[in-house]
This record gives sequence, structure tokens and C-alpha cells, in this order.
Amino acid sequence: MGTDYVHGYTPAETRRLADQAGTLADLLHGGTTYAPGSRVLEAGCGVGAQTVQLVTRSPGIDLVSVDVSEESLAEAKSRVAAAAPYATVDWRHADLLDLRGEKFDHVFVCFVLEHLADPTDALARLREYLNPGGTITVIEGDHGSAIYHPRSPSAQAVVDCLVDLQAEAGGDSLIGRRLHPLLQQAGYGDVRVEPRTVYADPARPELVDGFTRKTFIAMVESVRERALAAGLRTEAEWAAGIRDLERAAEAGGTFHYTFFKGVGRR
Amino acid sequence: MGTDYVHGYTPAETRRLADQAGTLADLLHGGTTYAPGSRVLEAGCGVGAQTVQLVTRSPGIDLVSVDVSEESLAEAKSRVAAAAPYATVDWRHADLLDLRGEKFDHVFVCFVLEHLADPTDALARLREYLNPGGTITVIEGDHGSAIYHPRSPSAQAVVDCLVDLQAEAGGDSLIGRRLHPLLQQAGYGDVRVEPRTVYADPARPELVDGFTRKTFIAMVESVRERALAAGLRTEAEWAAGIRDLERAAEAGGTFHYTFFKGVGRR
Repeated sequence: MGTDYVHGYTPAETRRLADQAGTLADLLHGGTTYAPGSRVLEAGCGVGAQTVQLVTRSPGIDLVSVDVSEESLAEAKSRVAAAAPYATVDWRHADLLDLRGEKFDHVFVCFVLEHLADPTDALARLREYLNPGGTITVIEGDHGSAIYHPRSPSAQAVVDCLVDLQAEAGGDSLIGRRLHPLLQQAGYGDVRVEPRTVYADPARPELVDGFTRKTFIAMVESVRERALAAGLRTEAEWAAGIRDLERAAEAGGTFHYTFFKGVGRR
Repeated sequence: MGTDYVHGYTPAETRRLADQAGTLADLLHGGTTYAPGSRVLEAGCGVGAQTVQLVTRSPGIDLVSVDVSEESLAEAKSRVAAAAPYATVDWRHADLLDLRGEKFDHVFVCFVLEHLADPTDALARLREYLNPGGTITVIEGDHGSAIYHPRSPSAQAVVDCLVDLQAEAGGDSLIGRRLHPLLQQAGYGDVRVEPRTVYADPARPELVDGFTRKTFIAMVESVRERALAAGLRTEAEWAAGIRDLERAAEAGGTFHYTFFKGVGRR
């Protein structure tokens, strides 16, 4: 199930994911708490940005956090150790689907499906790890929901690079709108999906900085080298696009993005 | 300030606006109530879809509802008479800006600015009608927020027709994202804008029917004749686009749209 991680593994990327988790924690995790003693699988924990939320919002759970990248796991361990030193996490360096025979009460998957060539298959396999009645929670973005002022074809061109590179790598950064059918196709029942919308304007400076700049624009910036190397944009086009995108984070600018959060039951 | 009303004045359009108001009433009007005795101006009441909400959610207000179309006003009167026979509304057949000398505690404007060539000027003039400390509430959509599954270039082409025809008529159907800067430029203080997101999938059949079909697709359909007459699409292209858009309202389909609601103070 391994695919290229389109955003790359760099300190800037680690910082981006941490900023994102801080600013968005309530928005994304709101409504998700697990009872003490529940056995929970975090499938694809990355650098631990969401792991910190899971252990602090659901104290006393028996959490297994899995990732294919040893570097990310090391980062995740130190992040959790710093933010929640009392928490115990069973860290596993493994493929998501390499837990054959284990069973969980709940599965949590955040910003993972967008990178997979066959998300339905992944969801169906994760379902096998659930005890009957257990739930899966899936959170994904959808870059098609990114609308901003001022509008700019140059800015849209760099956003489209992110979408195109993700698609070339076999993923789908427009996956949020598909969560409901994906969960249904994978065999889950009681499927409920909700939009979780981020909107940033000058009256919300913490979101302008934490989301527009340090999450969204930073995410677009993370594919710059790949976009240039692939010849998708020239250096000048890239710079102009980023410059225009930054106007959405300046006086008079606005930015809107929707995440989708879905829950299904085995 | 008169402009062509891009959606046209037909029974189907009247029905669309009523369905829209019913399904969306809580989403759009939530948080908006005016104290009994307040003098409120509804600028551009159209067929009264929002007027019914204003008089039922804020009983006892002194409401003046204005529209440039005599036909729409007649429709609005009978709608309010049927839905809220006890309500008294001071109906005015006039241009929005033809109330010189009058003063209000609050102004309410819904789905009007998108049709205007100079929304900042309109907002600035409406500000003159407010008593100091009075508020304006503005609600607008943004067709750029329309994302759906399955994706389809044919479907997007018919949605784009709506955007293009609105732009040709001097309006802007991507105006929602601009509400914050527009209100600021028009001189309002304490400006707060919130997204109000509609998301419809098979688990929400009332929204699939009331919003995806009877609001959004119906709105796109309302410009069919104009789009064909303008040569923007052939009949076959139009039919294919609508067919694809309808898939978003069928099994396995989803639809997402964001309205923006802004409040400012004089």
C-alpha cells in the first residue's frame, strides 16, 4: 500500500503538519472521543500530529499507532513524549495492512486516503480489524473547496499543481467529497459524513496565520521542487502564483477550505 | 441600481426560491433575530422567501420590505399572507436606494448583492439608512464552492454558464468569498463573516431533494434558455451537463455548497 508521499519528508513539512494540527484540532477532532479502555488503531500516524490529539482527548485508550515511515514514527514518538508524557502508545513500524489477526474497537484515519491508489480497498481491509459494532473515523480534505479572494488564475495554477502531482502519484486530493460513497463501498454501515469548514479573513488572524499561511500555502509550497522538476510551472510562474495566493492572507483577503469527516460502523 | 435578474421571473423560479428558503431557513437565518419594535429594512425581498422567515423568527418587528419588481412583490405579499397571516409588512415597490430620509435599526439583504454591478456602493448607501449602532446582515452564495461527486467536466460547464451569465449581466455569483472586504470597504465596523455550508449525500435525503435538486440544479436549469441563446452551450451539451449534475443527487453522489453570512455595524 506504500505510495510516494507527495508533500515530502522535511522539517518544514513536519512543522506544517504540527501547525495544522494545532489550529485545526477542535475543528477536526470535535465529536471524536473514545471510552477509556477502548482499543484504537491510528492507521498512518505520520509525525504524530493527530496522535497527540487522540491521547489527550481520549485519555485511557489503548492506542496502536502505525506508520510505514520510520523517520515519521521517531518524530511522532518525540512529539507525543513532549506533549503528553503520561500517554502510552504502542508504536508500530508497519504497513497499514500488516496487522493481521489483531482486532480494535475503533479505527482512526486522517489525511491518509488521499495518498492511496485504492482507498476503497484500504477501507475494506481496515474494516477487517474492527470488532463487530466498532467504528472507523476518516478525515480528509478536498482541494476543490479552496476558494479565496482575490481570485487569481496564477494562484489557481499552483494549487492545481498540488492536485495534479497527487493524482500522478496515484492519490486524489479531491477525495473529501467522495468519503460517503467510499465508506459505503467498503462495506461500512451507518455512514455519516460532515463538512468541517475553515474560513479565514482579517477578523480571524489566528486562522489566517495558522491555516491560510502555515497550512494551505505551506502545503502548496511543499511541492514546488517537484512541480518545477516536472516542468508543470516555470520558476517565475510559481513565484507569481504563490505571491497571489499570499494576498488571500493579507488585508482584504479571505480563504475558505472544507474538510470532510466521516464515520462508519462494522 | 436595476439589473437583469439572471434567473428570470417564472413560476418554476418562484417555486425554486420557496424550496430553497424552506430547506435552508435554519442554516441561513440561524443567529438572526431582531428585538420586537426594531425597525428593519429588507432590501430586495423578491418573492418573499426570506420575508416569511424574518416575520416568523422576529415577531413584533416593524418590517419594511422593498423590491423593484411589482410582480415579485405581489408574490411576496401572498406568500406572507399565507404563511404568517398575523404579520404586518410595509411593502414598498421601489428601488433599494429610494428610501431617502428613512432610518432603520437593522438592514437585511439576502441573495441581492450577487446581481449588482457595484455592491460596495450599494452597501455604502444602505449604511446611510442605519441608525448609529445599527447592523446590516448580508447573505450570499458562492458558486465556486459547489463541489460534487461524481466530478464531471460536462456538469462543470453548465455550472460555469451560470457564473458567466451572471458576470455578463454585471453581477458576481462568486461574491460570497468577498463579503468581508465588501462590508469593510463600505464603511461598516465590527465586520464578522461566517461560512454556512450545505452538504448533501444519501444519508441526508431531504437536502439531496431540497438543495441539490430543487435549489442548485434548478438554479442552473433556470438559465438554460439564455445559455443556449447566447451560444454558450449546444442543447446536447446542456442536456449532458445537467444529466451529470443529477448524478450528484443519486445513489453514491454528494454535493457541497457554502453560503457566506456577514454582519456589520454602522
